[in-house]
Amino acid sequence: LGSGTFADVRRMLNGLPAADVAHLLESSPPKFRHILWQMVEQEDEGDVINELGDELRLHFLSDMNAAEVAQITEHLQDDDLVDILQQLPDRVTREVLDSMDHRDRARLEQVMTYPDDTAGGLMSTDTITIRPPLTFDVVLRYLRRHAEIPPMTDNLIVVNRNDQFIGLLPLNTLLVSDPSSTVRERMITDIPPIPADMPDDEVARLFERNDWVSAPVVDQQGRLLGRITIDDVVDVIREDADHSLTSMAGLAEDLDTFAPVFYTASRRALWLGINLLTAFLAASVINLFQDTIEKVVALAVLMPIVASMGGIAGTQTLTVMVRGMALGHVGKHNESWLINRELAVGLLNGILWAAVVAVAASLWFDDWNIGLIIAAAMIISLLAAALTGATLPLLLKRMKIDPALAGGVVLTVTDVVGFLSFLGLATWFYV
Amino acid sequence: LGSGTFADVRRMLNGLPAADVAHLLESSPPKFRHILWQMVEQEDEGDVINELGDELRLHFLSDMNAAEVAQITEHLQDDDLVDILQQLPDRVTREVLDSMDHRDRARLEQVMTYPDDTAGGLMSTDTITIRPPLTFDVVLRYLRRHAEIPPMTDNLIVVNRNDQFIGLLPLNTLLVSDPSSTVRERMITDIPPIPADMPDDEVARLFERNDWVSAPVVDQQGRLLGRITIDDVVDVIREDADHSLTSMAGLAEDLDTFAPVFYTASRRALWLGINLLTAFLAASVINLFQDTIEKVVALAVLMPIVASMGGIAGTQTLTVMVRGMALGHVGKHNESWLINRELAVGLLNGILWAAVVAVAASLWFDDWNIGLIIAAAMIISLLAAALTGATLPLLLKRMKIDPALAGGVVLTVTDVVGFLSFLGLATWFYV
Repeated sequence: LGSGTFADVRRMLNGLPAADVAHLLESSPPKFRHILWQMVEQEDEGDVINELGDELRLHFLSDMNAAEVAQITEHLQDDDLVDILQQLPDRVTREVLDSMDHRDRARLEQVMTYPDDTAGGLMSTDTITIRPPLTFDVVLRYLRRHAEIPPMTDNLIVVNRNDQFIGLLPLNTLLVSDPSSTVRERMITDIPPIPADMPDDEVARLFERNDWVSAPVVDQQGRLLGRITIDDVVDVIREDADHSLTSMAGLAEDLDTFAPVFYTASRRALWLGINLLTAFLAASVINLFQDTIEKVVALAVLMPIVASMGGIAGTQTLTVMVRGMALGHVGKHNESWLINRELAVGLLNGILWAAVVAVAASLWFDDWNIGLIIAAAMIISLLAAALTGATLPLLLKRMKIDPALAGGVVLTVTDVVGFLSFLGLATWFYV
Repeated sequence: LGSGTFADVRRMLNGLPAADVAHLLESSPPKFRHILWQMVEQEDEGDVINELGDELRLHFLSDMNAAEVAQITEHLQDDDLVDILQQLPDRVTREVLDSMDHRDRARLEQVMTYPDDTAGGLMSTDTITIRPPLTFDVVLRYLRRHAEIPPMTDNLIVVNRNDQFIGLLPLNTLLVSDPSSTVRERMITDIPPIPADMPDDEVARLFERNDWVSAPVVDQQGRLLGRITIDDVVDVIREDADHSLTSMAGLAEDLDTFAPVFYTASRRALWLGINLLTAFLAASVINLFQDTIEKVVALAVLMPIVASMGGIAGTQTLTVMVRGMALGHVGKHNESWLINRELAVGLLNGILWAAVVAVAASLWFDDWNIGLIIAAAMIISLLAAALTGATLPLLLKRMKIDPALAGGVVLTVTDVVGFLSFLGLATWFYV
């Protein structure tokens, strides 16, 4: 890509779909990224902005004023536009809304009343609605007048006089049925519509389980508000999965892979700082046992083994829990089974590797006592790892805190318990 | 759920969609799971098996003989059936195939020639094909004879006399156009079909970027083999995201949250064993400095801080790399930029937290030398963490090994470098 002339690159870039341009921007270091962005035709900027990840999108938007934002985003779908507006400072959002005509603004403001992470925040308002008494003949003529049907329309939505949801008429049914059939005869009424306040991860699970392409969204009175399409649900699935991965390492979700140095360093510094505090906590535990270590230096050599094994076991348990919670597998009725399972697994693996470590350490330092001590510490440590790794994310969830953030605490607990049990037992034995 | 009578539970269970039953099984501990499974009507077993995760599916299938498998799966779609067959031992797969009629077997065997993780392995063969000269009137009559159109059909596929792919005719176009139009006039020809050997993650990216509901799959001669639908792509996206999360903790992807104790313990033991080896490696580094530690016990107190900060920094870098690679952001042209960025971030955060640690350690042990030593070790350690975390996954990928498996090695390197730099500098200074 670096080899072509400027004009060639520009021509190639503007021949690509917006999603590919966005992917190219996301895969480019900052300097190159800005050159690319300047080459994007202004009329395509809205589509490209729409396809970008949160961090990078905000980066480009922050350079624009309200008029520019309004101009490049005017042709976007409601749900996409709302996503963008919700990222902007309130003042800019207000200005963009003010620049719209009355009807557009009213529709957008309605969508914006629903939080970003609910069905209402995911929906677009480009529905095609029909009434039950119509014959297929009439519906087909009505559709032909539309000239274009919105993408991902697999169903027409059947509503009553008060705009309340009644059922769905699949386009496929329309295609294969006798033109004299009526909507009432052939519509599907056993699929419940999605309430606007349903959390987005629940929406994603419904789509996955039922293999939907689109689904209607209603308010508390059953009135049709809009519809959610699978492309937006796929984004939710990606983001949720991304979230578990990145937050376990103390990183922001939807982060920009090629963010510049200072930005990246400052975003990661906090997590390192928290870890430094907890590391000092672990160090102060070791500090209690200075005399013992002075007497038996082998303890200083072996103590990281206990802490490290506890850390790995704790991370495994935590990962299983965080993942199980994200998938909706874990609930009140099976929590205690899971905690017990993790304790049993911790005990089994504790005994297994304690035996191995005991033999290895005893032979290394020619002292069977140190083998017994490290074995006991290892079992205690793996049990503590299982207990913390299993209960902490449940506790955090109950406190409405992201369970994936438990990582740092789990490692602190396994470090502290590891050092305390190993050095404590050693002190009791040797001193 | 535990409170209803047996008959109530059975009635409720068999009223649920297969995906919900599968979710219920996945959310249940083993004992309860088997009771539930026995309540599932035999005719629904195939659908439920189809919706289960790999581990649990294999668990139930392993209790069945070939005839049972063939019976419960006979109504599944090709791609789903092939997924199931590929999980079974070769002998059972052979028997199931032999029990089918000739045409079904031939079709399945063709799909099975493509690996599970390629476009060919994802596709189903339930396509509706049409020829270019037809008028919409004729196409509509042809569809009405079908009575049912396969789910997720948004396009009819246009092929020539040799069954080679020519283009797509969206059902929406068919609905809104004049019945006298011909397929040739209105078909879309600028969407390239998917080659059967394309890796599944690339297929997922194409679907995401282009907002497809379904896409045609062709062989090397351009002949239509089948089509891929968004529901199977969503599974790929879930699994890929799951994969990064679980393999970084040394766990299997698509694991069963409620797997029994012995199974879970044995699956996790290997990763713990590998970690034990590397922990002994780190311990042997400390062992080199026994004399120094005996002289200055504060070193034993502070050394886990250096190792722990290196571990956190290395994990952050590794997570960014593994995620960037999974999203297709990282390639040869931007690798070196990323490595440099990570080194710069490591240096900045190294300097920041080294300063904090230096002051804290100096005050704690009333010795400014130990502060300087730990500061230097911290900077070296964070640079090593950045270098390993950034280069190792790239190296593994080049060797066709899963980059997410780098976790263990990164922690070992940061431990070894942390202990070596801290204790090494201390020995040089104090001894």
